[in-house]
Amino acid sequence: MQTPFSHLGPIDHVGIAVRSLDEAVPFYRDTLKLPLLGVEEVADQGVRTAIFSGPLGRVELLEATHAESPIAKFIAKRGEGMHHVALRVTDLDAELARLEAQGVQLIDRTARIGAGGHRIAFLHPKATGGVLLELCEPHAAAT
Amino acid sequence: MQTPFSHLGPIDHVGIAVRSLDEAVPFYRDTLKLPLLGVEEVADQGVRTAIFSGPLGRVELLEATHAESPIAKFIAKRGEGMHHVALRVTDLDAELARLEAQGVQLIDRTARIGAGGHRIAFLHPKATGGVLLELCEPHAAAT
Repeated sequence: MQTPFSHLGPIDHVGIAVRSLDEAVPFYRDTLKLPLLGVEEVADQGVRTAIFSGPLGRVELLEATHAESPIAKFIAKRGEGMHHVALRVTDLDAELARLEAQGVQLIDRTARIGAGGHRIAFLHPKATGGVLLELCEPHAAAT
Repeated sequence: MQTPFSHLGPIDHVGIAVRSLDEAVPFYRDTLKLPLLGVEEVADQGVRTAIFSGPLGRVELLEATHAESPIAKFIAKRGEGMHHVALRVTDLDAELARLEAQGVQLIDRTARIGAGGHRIAFLHPKATGGVLLELCEPHAAAT
């Protein structure tokens, strides 16, 4: 993967929590006319996702698949809306080690597997000015 | 400007409301090591912005410059955090006309000038599943 930026790259995607993909997808697909790349369930996180647009700068709609899903809890507390920002990285393990050594509060100290098979980890919003930041190392087959 | 996507393009930037650029910039610049492109005041919107990373997929931190700024009101109500998502468009006037004809609720029915001289307009969160969506037509000199 190449990027014109530093080792912590540009925005990979923005995650948006919605109550229902069936209700939210038509606006993004048919009204905004963003290309719908696919819909995928990520059982580990209790979400079903719809992903729009290209290889970078994607929009990801997130629907909870059960009441204990982080997305269900987010919507119960704050309503629908922006949930997280994902920055692309080339080496997630190295970034996590670097940030932890600097005392940055991490939610995930080791990588998890997210949608598309990408390796992901979240930083705590306390570290970032209130933003749930995801670091995302693309799955080799998807870059 | 070229884009591999449809006429409504990928994410141009994500706007993050912060209480203080002086407090928030060091995390993004020195800890995450995102390149800081510049700091700019946009008097029309009562904000001072710090913009990170490359020509697409940028992170924009937003600090209010006075108490009536939309950013001051946002933070008073919801705290610091994700404020808006901007999608790049090639022809903002045509997009606004198309969306209005489809009954999409707009905040700005005509373009305003934002940071960097870009032509921008916001859609109402009621139309988008709770997201403040900005459409952004880059200033010719900046593409």
